[in-house]
Amino acid sequence: MAENFDLVVRNGTIATASDIIHCDVGVRDGRIVAMAEDLGTGKRELDASGKLVLPGGVDSHCHIEQASSSGVMTADDFYTGTVSACFGGTTTVIPFAAQARGQSLREVVDAYHLCAGPKAVIDYAFHLIISDPTPEVMGQELPALIEDGITSFKVYMTYDALKLDDYQMMTVLEEARRLGALVMVHAENHDVIRWLADRLLEQGHRAPKYHAVAHARIAEGEATSRAIQLAKLIDAPLLIVHVSAQEATDAIRKAQTEGLKIYGETCPQYLFLTAQDLDRDGMDGAMFCCSPPPRDAQAQEAIWRGLKNGTFQVFSSDHAPYRFDETAKLKHGPNAHFKQIANGVPGLELRLPLLFSEGVKKGRITLNEFVALTAANAAKLYGLFPRKGTIAVGADADFAIWDPDREVTVTYDMLHDAVGYTPYEGRTITGWPELVVSRGRIVVEDGSLHAEMGSGVFLECEKPDSARP
Amino acid sequence: MAENFDLVVRNGTIATASDIIHCDVGVRDGRIVAMAEDLGTGKRELDASGKLVLPGGVDSHCHIEQASSSGVMTADDFYTGTVSACFGGTTTVIPFAAQARGQSLREVVDAYHLCAGPKAVIDYAFHLIISDPTPEVMGQELPALIEDGITSFKVYMTYDALKLDDYQMMTVLEEARRLGALVMVHAENHDVIRWLADRLLEQGHRAPKYHAVAHARIAEGEATSRAIQLAKLIDAPLLIVHVSAQEATDAIRKAQTEGLKIYGETCPQYLFLTAQDLDRDGMDGAMFCCSPPPRDAQAQEAIWRGLKNGTFQVFSSDHAPYRFDETAKLKHGPNAHFKQIANGVPGLELRLPLLFSEGVKKGRITLNEFVALTAANAAKLYGLFPRKGTIAVGADADFAIWDPDREVTVTYDMLHDAVGYTPYEGRTITGWPELVVSRGRIVVEDGSLHAEMGSGVFLECEKPDSARP
Amino acid sequence: MAENFDLVVRNGTIATASDIIHCDVGVRDGRIVAMAEDLGTGKRELDASGKLVLPGGVDSHCHIEQASSSGVMTADDFYTGTVSACFGGTTTVIPFAAQARGQSLREVVDAYHLCAGPKAVIDYAFHLIISDPTPEVMGQELPALIEDGITSFKVYMTYDALKLDDYQMMTVLEEARRLGALVMVHAENHDVIRWLADRLLEQGHRAPKYHAVAHARIAEGEATSRAIQLAKLIDAPLLIVHVSAQEATDAIRKAQTEGLKIYGETCPQYLFLTAQDLDRDGMDGAMFCCSPPPRDAQAQEAIWRGLKNGTFQVFSSDHAPYRFDETAKLKHGPNAHFKQIANGVPGLELRLPLLFSEGVKKGRITLNEFVALTAANAAKLYGLFPRKGTIAVGADADFAIWDPDREVTVTYDMLHDAVGYTPYEGRTITGWPELVVSRGRIVVEDGSLHAEMGSGVFLECEKPDSARP
Amino acid sequence: MAENFDLVVRNGTIATASDIIHCDVGVRDGRIVAMAEDLGTGKRELDASGKLVLPGGVDSHCHIEQASSSGVMTADDFYTGTVSACFGGTTTVIPFAAQARGQSLREVVDAYHLCAGPKAVIDYAFHLIISDPTPEVMGQELPALIEDGITSFKVYMTYDALKLDDYQMMTVLEEARRLGALVMVHAENHDVIRWLADRLLEQGHRAPKYHAVAHARIAEGEATSRAIQLAKLIDAPLLIVHVSAQEATDAIRKAQTEGLKIYGETCPQYLFLTAQDLDRDGMDGAMFCCSPPPRDAQAQEAIWRGLKNGTFQVFSSDHAPYRFDETAKLKHGPNAHFKQIANGVPGLELRLPLLFSEGVKKGRITLNEFVALTAANAAKLYGLFPRKGTIAVGADADFAIWDPDREVTVTYDMLHDAVGYTPYEGRTITGWPELVVSRGRIVVEDGSLHAEMGSGVFLECEKPDSARP
Ligand SMILES: [Zn+2]
Ligand SMILES: [Zn+2]
Ligand SMILES: [Zn+2]
Ligand SMILES: [Zn+2]
Ligand SMILES: [Zn+2]
Ligand SMILES: [Zn+2]
Ligand SMILES: [Zn+2]
Ligand SMILES: [Zn+2]
Repeated sequence: MAENFDLVVRNGTIATASDIIHCDVGVRDGRIVAMAEDLGTGKRELDASGKLVLPGGVDSHCHIEQASSSGVMTADDFYTGTVSACFGGTTTVIPFAAQARGQSLREVVDAYHLCAGPKAVIDYAFHLIISDPTPEVMGQELPALIEDGITSFKVYMTYDALKLDDYQMMTVLEEARRLGALVMVHAENHDVIRWLADRLLEQGHRAPKYHAVAHARIAEGEATSRAIQLAKLIDAPLLIVHVSAQEATDAIRKAQTEGLKIYGETCPQYLFLTAQDLDRDGMDGAMFCCSPPPRDAQAQEAIWRGLKNGTFQVFSSDHAPYRFDETAKLKHGPNAHFKQIANGVPGLELRLPLLFSEGVKKGRITLNEFVALTAANAAKLYGLFPRKGTIAVGADADFAIWDPDREVTVTYDMLHDAVGYTPYEGRTITGWPELVVSRGRIVVEDGSLHAEMGSGVFLECEKPDSARP
Repeated sequence: MAENFDLVVRNGTIATASDIIHCDVGVRDGRIVAMAEDLGTGKRELDASGKLVLPGGVDSHCHIEQASSSGVMTADDFYTGTVSACFGGTTTVIPFAAQARGQSLREVVDAYHLCAGPKAVIDYAFHLIISDPTPEVMGQELPALIEDGITSFKVYMTYDALKLDDYQMMTVLEEARRLGALVMVHAENHDVIRWLADRLLEQGHRAPKYHAVAHARIAEGEATSRAIQLAKLIDAPLLIVHVSAQEATDAIRKAQTEGLKIYGETCPQYLFLTAQDLDRDGMDGAMFCCSPPPRDAQAQEAIWRGLKNGTFQVFSSDHAPYRFDETAKLKHGPNAHFKQIANGVPGLELRLPLLFSEGVKKGRITLNEFVALTAANAAKLYGLFPRKGTIAVGADADFAIWDPDREVTVTYDMLHDAVGYTPYEGRTITGWPELVVSRGRIVVEDGSLHAEMGSGVFLECEKPDSARP
Repeated sequence: MAENFDLVVRNGTIATASDIIHCDVGVRDGRIVAMAEDLGTGKRELDASGKLVLPGGVDSHCHIEQASSSGVMTADDFYTGTVSACFGGTTTVIPFAAQARGQSLREVVDAYHLCAGPKAVIDYAFHLIISDPTPEVMGQELPALIEDGITSFKVYMTYDALKLDDYQMMTVLEEARRLGALVMVHAENHDVIRWLADRLLEQGHRAPKYHAVAHARIAEGEATSRAIQLAKLIDAPLLIVHVSAQEATDAIRKAQTEGLKIYGETCPQYLFLTAQDLDRDGMDGAMFCCSPPPRDAQAQEAIWRGLKNGTFQVFSSDHAPYRFDETAKLKHGPNAHFKQIANGVPGLELRLPLLFSEGVKKGRITLNEFVALTAANAAKLYGLFPRKGTIAVGADADFAIWDPDREVTVTYDMLHDAVGYTPYEGRTITGWPELVVSRGRIVVEDGSLHAEMGSGVFLECEKPDSARP
Repeated sequence: MAENFDLVVRNGTIATASDIIHCDVGVRDGRIVAMAEDLGTGKRELDASGKLVLPGGVDSHCHIEQASSSGVMTADDFYTGTVSACFGGTTTVIPFAAQARGQSLREVVDAYHLCAGPKAVIDYAFHLIISDPTPEVMGQELPALIEDGITSFKVYMTYDALKLDDYQMMTVLEEARRLGALVMVHAENHDVIRWLADRLLEQGHRAPKYHAVAHARIAEGEATSRAIQLAKLIDAPLLIVHVSAQEATDAIRKAQTEGLKIYGETCPQYLFLTAQDLDRDGMDGAMFCCSPPPRDAQAQEAIWRGLKNGTFQVFSSDHAPYRFDETAKLKHGPNAHFKQIANGVPGLELRLPLLFSEGVKKGRITLNEFVALTAANAAKLYGLFPRKGTIAVGADADFAIWDPDREVTVTYDMLHDAVGYTPYEGRTITGWPELVVSRGRIVVEDGSLHAEMGSGVFLECEKPDSARP
């Protein structure tokens, strides 16, 4: 073995989704080429004694430089978004290329490439959002894009501008099954939310906290069950994103128990926030409005249980960064009602530290499970494995060196996104990614960014096994 | 890195429980010390191009050189047993040191060490079987043995000579919880089996096939549910061994859904045999008598589903090798009734090939899941990880090189155990472990054994995470 | 007690929903005024020795003189429909007054009164069908009609001309809750049926049997679950009509287990027909097309189980009599595809004999359960109790004298409806209602009708307890 | 009809398990012979205007003049017990004839007849308690007693002196199935209770409240599930008595959902007491010790739900009257530990008023359901129908005239048993049985007893339908 590595990480404790390994890691040309007990020298050497070396996170659900369905722009573009991600130990993002109705998918994707290419500092892939599954879109555009490495797409059961009806859902599931693409679904019952919101507004209930009332648990549970039934009928795999309610968790678990290929994703906001957070003075609750909303302590326990027992495969951020000002959350002014508040919370940067601190350090999940939930499973589900999501010979050299004992008190100041606030302000976290490597490049070190704008590359996803019926 | 390896495996496709890696593997002093794309030379080099390199199997449930509770001796001693195991790609076995009532655990263990030490050709650990949980046994002997690396034990809810009542079960679960040992349970309702057997015999139903009638699915389902309830009350982890019935599978799944630390094990006989196999001319069905018995095609599907969705963590052989002659199965003569037939089937050697062929090759499970079920999970559950169960730097060099496409038609002649028959006679298997390495030693190559008697070593198990409440 | 009865029935065995009573029954002015062991004389006396005296059936789901949503007229008007009913032992019918979109409920009801009043030979009430729940309809017309004794209404989750969306469902449930009316729902997922039908037709599958494929079990199970979730959110009672699939049965049972006020109805076609019946030469299968369709033997068992264990409260006919000719089933000609066939089967006359024969005589249900399912429960659910549905002092004298042992082979000739065929042709039935009394009038005797056209009266329903949240 | 009745009740509102009837009731020779709107005269006439006339309660689970398994005698003999019962509106009791091991069933029954015959003031039947199911007992004595009208028996899964093991349970279920007798089971896991009690006592936890800890919910849930599994295997009906835990309720419901003939009984103490009641100063908690113990508010809700949705068929008292003094509860002195306290609470007299007040008056159950749960269902389950449990022509004239609005504050002074305390002291009840009739005799009127000692008769039970597989 040639001994001249670009980078050698020595004496770390490496975790993959199944292993804990004490050895050196040798990197050359952006890839891990050797793992051994005593590697030769590298141009750059890092001492990871007493530290953890974990696969860079794969954040498979985040909204970057995307206009919401109501036309509000996310605060983060591909520069701030990816910078924020890598400071939090994440080295791959899979944001959405979102189709508005009437748009050509190809044009949508081209536009997102134009945004991402010059700005991303870490690697990225795309999911599509399909809001207009015409025969043209499904029959011609989608297959072509799958060939180009975009092999998953999200559909919505709610939001006026995005919502598919059950007929369209079945069409979409059937096409995905045929083409080998993975369908992700935002499962909330549109009519239930609409009906509740109308009643609340009629009664003058306008405060942000009513967002959580309108997005009832039953709306989520019902739509999740329905989506699963449709997938079962078509015999198509399906991933339910951002699960917050026990009703939805139960429906997913039941399907898995039956042997269906149903996958589940959850997010930090469902472990660390509750509906109580929306109930603050004035409009402050707006900072915590996301869909589905955080629930309560009992639901948090159900989510933890689902992370532990395998109901959820992915823990992603659903980073949807809307500033708490007139450009976004408060676009409709200081007296806006809850339907006028852009839905979403930021989470790209704190996703891994939060789960590490509350999950691994508190003994709720193992380090292997942490890696599976934050990196490996997403890479597998979306066709990026084994290139991403693990530390193994042949994989991209994407990892972070963590101090497992470092205590950090979160303030927005320390973060690198453009959203202007964090829902986790003031929370104390144990464990922090101190040095981050993306394709062999040290991108974060000593709290500073070392990556050039546009140095991230686009990742073509394979047709994933997860999408096989 | 020093380049003089004892052994280098080149160009293989390596699978762990989560990764697929294409690289060379370097072994020194019995351990894997390097994995890299282009390793230096070794004293011995193996070309694994086009082959799979899989972790050596960990068979965590097998009976070797053990007298059954009714006094029949297993056909295999630690020589034939471990030879058979390694020919099948298994490099670690965890048989039982079985206490008869009144015996001191220490004496039992000493006796098994005396049997195993001089004969085993691969490494081994021990579980205890505890049939007499006196205060002395639980309070003094067990803690001492746990310190000596025997950190798991099996208890029985049936068999006159082994059966614990629920009171004893609770005592045992509480002690295990306190000491950090993992309890394995044989869960069948003793009275149900006894009652059915008495009725069957009264009616003159003596043939081997009535064994499967007496060991009713409800007997297994009921005892499994009961054991889980007891564990829940004590808040102790529990592993249900050799699950065959959907009722038991459902009970385990339900407990896991609730968040309980309940583990499940199943075996080849529950995937590849049915109760029909017991219904043969004369006493031939006796070759397939084991407890619990194989069920039917629907139960097989339930077991496959449980392997896929995570209900079962371990796939072991429950190798219980009783010869089909007057020394064992037919000890009570050619007219014996079904209660007089020693319970057990052999499986050490074919466990991995059967699951590989029917599971991996037919697309029911992934290669990673295969490794998890046959090696990694057992190593983790029983405190042998990361030394055993994976291919990673620092682990023991225990692996097998598989030809994934080799077709083999099973005949007893090709096997290496001492039991005299195989329940899988005539079955065609795709995929075979052609060369097997144990702690860096090539133990099987070109169909021949290269290991010396007694060259296996005893493994001290850690107190496993699995046993933490 | 004055001894001059209009009618005395002597020595019968009377069954109510809970009692079995041997006594005489005295009738005066159309009502039961005395039950005693030895009653005085009546103007007319009937000897019921060895016979059963059962409450007249209440058929709470039947379509009479109604245009289907696609404009096909039922074969039965209020004369033939009620004549057919009373020959089968039914003395009360609750057909639908069906609103087409845009129609005023009041006009609809007036029109049905005009049809029914001059023709009905037994008593009748009305449910509404609401297809257009405008604020005017729900806020003004519905409350007025409830005051006039129409206290239940049916809504549809499928059929283009009738379908409510979930938003409308919630509105309707909320209004019903407020007003004390009971909602009945036809629960099938419209999009699922549409999607499957489109795919089937695209592939050239046009035969009647594809009706059962398009109306998939999942379509029924999903919509049932959804409707229940909506009712749960509103905290409103809900009755699921004409349940055929185990998925739907399970959803209802689960809701009842949770303590929700969810009721279930099933029909003869789900006990005595299967999807196989639709698979006949040419268009013959069209005679068996109804929605939801009959399923299979396993589903029949699930329905029987649900009748026995209380999941279903009502067993009604869903009589929807479309002639097997160009006026109805074959309106679109002999080559029509399955979407063009009017949905429905007749059942008014054979509902009771079929259930008596297969249920009571074969020991699947008790005689008390028979009465509850066919008469008492419907009367209670819809606000007609204790006037209808029982044999008790003060109740209307509505009953039938049954020969429990009479064997009858069904042929269409013996029936009295106008539909021209029976799906139960050739079936042998044990037990038959020989003499039928409606409000004290003998309406059927010796196989002849003795009732005058228009002698039935309209029944104002109370706001039922069943509709209280 | 001859007009000279012994007794006429005029103008009452009569309820049966399914009907509400406004009419007069005529009684002759102890039986109801007429119900009519305007009956002729009676020797005695009662005006029930504005009152309810309800079937006399059938208390199918009570311990009268019985020695407990630990040798403590109940405070009530057949005189005080039946007097207490009738003051509470109950007119039939089915206490136990309890076999001690080694005893002949025939001798046991003879002894109980000798106790009951001269003392009972209302009618009574017997269940057996079988603690020693020898072939002699099951094969000869039991069949003979069934012929004599004792067609149900209780078995225990706990208590040293009574406990059957699973083998015996199966034998007993099989014999009952063959003979047509109904098995009642006290389902608690003996070993679980023993183990917990031993641990509690080791730790010095002796107070009455630890009784509820030792009798864990899991002990009840587990044994209930197990008993159901055994019944399922034998295909025998089974009634689970005195259910208190949601786990047990769920197991029963699940079995009923599957279509098994499993019945459930619950008692006032599980609706109106909680484990908190055992936690009083000194030994006062002993007054509330019964097995299984009362649980918590959530369990009470589950029991109410089970009463409403049909999980429970019977609501009986499990009257087990042990005085709170040295003769019974405190036999082992003022410092006794919880295992030394006789298990049981009184309930014969308040059973109906409590359920009427909290169930009917508060809208949780209907009046028909009240009658079914307290009278009709028990009569049906145990082969006493239609003689007992209803108000219908031909039935025994057993009923009570209730003032539905009378408010009563419970004090022990007003009760008529011999136990010396009531667990419901101080509770306010609405609705009271003011006049009670047993076989036509007014036994309670104006708060006074009018029945002679020994005037009750023994009722031979039929082999009930409930016991048919
Ligand atoms: Zn979303
Ligand atoms: Zn999102
Ligand atoms: Zn075993
Ligand atoms: Zn074994
Ligand atoms: Zn319908
Ligand atoms: Zn209909
Ligand atoms: Zn008891
Ligand atoms: Zn009792």
